[in-house]
Amino acid sequence: MTLYLDDLKVGDIARFGRYEVTREEVIEFASKYDPQPFHLDDEAAAQGLFGKIAASGWHTAGMTMRMQVEHWREIGLDKASLGGAGMDDIRWTHPVYPGDVLSCETEVLEVIPSRSKPDRGMVKTRWTTFNQRNEPVMILTTIGIMRRRSAAG
Amino acid sequence: MTLYLDDLKVGDIARFGRYEVTREEVIEFASKYDPQPFHLDDEAAAQGLFGKIAASGWHTAGMTMRMQVEHWREIGLDKASLGGAGMDDIRWTHPVYPGDVLSCETEVLEVIPSRSKPDRGMVKTRWTTFNQRNEPVMILTTIGIMRRRSAAG
Repeated sequence: MTLYLDDLKVGDIARFGRYEVTREEVIEFASKYDPQPFHLDDEAAAQGLFGKIAASGWHTAGMTMRMQVEHWREIGLDKASLGGAGMDDIRWTHPVYPGDVLSCETEVLEVIPSRSKPDRGMVKTRWTTFNQRNEPVMILTTIGIMRRRSAAG
Repeated sequence: MTLYLDDLKVGDIARFGRYEVTREEVIEFASKYDPQPFHLDDEAAAQGLFGKIAASGWHTAGMTMRMQVEHWREIGLDKASLGGAGMDDIRWTHPVYPGDVLSCETEVLEVIPSRSKPDRGMVKTRWTTFNQRNEPVMILTTIGIMRRRSAAG
């Protein structure tokens, strides 16, 4: 089954994903893309807001994206995705620590067919990433570009 | 010299950074965090909006963050950073391709000392990432948490 923009309905909610956060990956990501001491070093982290080594917020976004892409594949939405235009907002609401297990919830907020390009449209979706205690660690609103069913050959 | 929240002024603009985007790194990042075909495969990318393999938007954010952290170190602002609360918005305004060379511009939009915690505050900053043709590829508004000078021991 292949899903398109036309198959998304405002209010649709999905819950999925499982991502185990390891110390090795937290340090590897931060070393490359966010080399601040509180992502890399226990002693420095103890003196900051996190208390111990915490994942870069961009790493949490990446781990979340990975779960999203796998979910789209599972439900047949992957062929519709044309890329992301951006985010309306992102909030990192709780630190993510090595040993945490993340999962996702999505809610469709708006479905906006393009006026000028009948083969595509935009979908605004709220993504909430949870840890294993069901605490939200990241909340964001994405603007995705998606193919419409009419565009299918 | 160590800078703090108190040293940031609304309207301050800085331009810095240089990041060469390689095909290997684009594919490595996307394989881990955004495994959509248009980030991984030339043929699939040719049929999408990007035309050829393009970096994940999250990868562009990571490369930008790396340049930011290095810049903070260079100007002495790194010790003030306590982490990020989130982003007000992100827009990916142009695809980022292997071979591109990225750089950054920042503008301070708001400096907000905390009312309840005199040792810290928030700074809203607009980050624009450019490619080598001076096209903006990503624009976002960050909300950073920073130490105040008064907090220095």
